[in-house]
Amino acid sequence: MEKGYIQVYTGNGKGKTTAAFGLCLRAVCAGKKVYIGQFVKGMEYSELNAAKILPNFEIEQFGRGCFIRNEPSLEDFEAARKGLEKCKKIISSGEYDVVVLDEINIAMFYKLISVDEVLELIKLKAEKTELILTGRYAPQEIIDAADLVTEMREIKHYYTKGVMARKGIES
Amino acid sequence: MEKGYIQVYTGNGKGKTTAAFGLCLRAVCAGKKVYIGQFVKGMEYSELNAAKILPNFEIEQFGRGCFIRNEPSLEDFEAARKGLEKCKKIISSGEYDVVVLDEINIAMFYKLISVDEVLELIKLKAEKTELILTGRYAPQEIIDAADLVTEMREIKHYYTKGVMARKGIES
Repeated sequence: MEKGYIQVYTGNGKGKTTAAFGLCLRAVCAGKKVYIGQFVKGMEYSELNAAKILPNFEIEQFGRGCFIRNEPSLEDFEAARKGLEKCKKIISSGEYDVVVLDEINIAMFYKLISVDEVLELIKLKAEKTELILTGRYAPQEIIDAADLVTEMREIKHYYTKGVMARKGIES
Repeated sequence: MEKGYIQVYTGNGKGKTTAAFGLCLRAVCAGKKVYIGQFVKGMEYSELNAAKILPNFEIEQFGRGCFIRNEPSLEDFEAARKGLEKCKKIISSGEYDVVVLDEINIAMFYKLISVDEVLELIKLKAEKTELILTGRYAPQEIIDAADLVTEMREIKHYYTKGVMARKGIES
C-alpha cells in the first residue's frame, strides 16, 4: 500500500484552500476517495457543490456562518470540537486516500483547538491517507510534523484595487 | 458583467497547477465555464480525467510526452506555438469564465514563446474572462501585467526523503 504523507499549505497568499481542492480533484480523477473537513468556515462556498458533481468526494463544515472577528464565541469552540472528533474518525478509518483539514491552522490560531490536539490527531492518521492541513499561521510544531510545507506568499493582490471576493472565483 | 482579472501562480513550491485546478473546480461548481491549456506538459495526468467528470471543463495539452531536459526540440517549439494560437482564440472568444495557461511561464523560460507574445495574448482577454498563468520563473513583465500574483514557496519537501511523484497526488 502506498504511504500517505502530511502536507501543509500556509502563508498570507491566495491558493491554500484552492490548492487543497485541486489536489482532491486530481485524487478523485485517479479513482481515490476524499474527505474535506472545513474548520472555522460555515458559509456557503461554491466548493460545497463539488460533492454533488464529484464521486468519492465528501465535504463538511465545522464553523459558523461568518468568520471570527474579535473573540471566538462558544459556538465557534463547539463547532471546532465537533470537527476535531469527526476528523479523528475519518483520519484513522483507513477509508480515505486524501483528507483535508481546511483552515485548521486558523482554528489553532484562535485556540478553538490546541496544537497538541492536532498533533494527536495527526498521529491517528491511517498509513495510506494523505493528510493536508491548510490555513495561515501554521504553528512550528505542525510544520515540524509535516513532510511537505508550502507557503503561499502574496506578491501582488487586487484587493488593494478594491475588488471583493467573487462567487466561483474566491468563494 | 463581472470583470475577469489576471492571476499568476509562480514560485518553486508545490501547488501552482493544483491551485489553478482547484479554482477551476470552484468555478465549475458555480456554473462557470472553464478552459485549461497546458504548455510543456504532454504526459497523462490524472487531471485529464477531470474533463470526463466535470461539466463545462475543457483541457488540452500543448507539450510532448516528457519534460524538456536540456535544449528544447523543434517539436517543443511547434507544440507551444500551436498552444499559443489556440489560446488566443479561447481567451478572446468571451465564451469562457476562467482560462488557465498552465506552465506558460516555463514555456517562456525555455523561450518556446516570447514574453512579448504572451503580453499580446493577455491583451486579447475578453472582459469577463479570469485568466490564470502558472509556472515557475514568471517574468517581471508578466507580474507587472497581472492583478494578483502568488508565490508558492517550498518550505519543506519530502522529495528530499526520496519520495517520487505519486499518481493522483502530484500527477
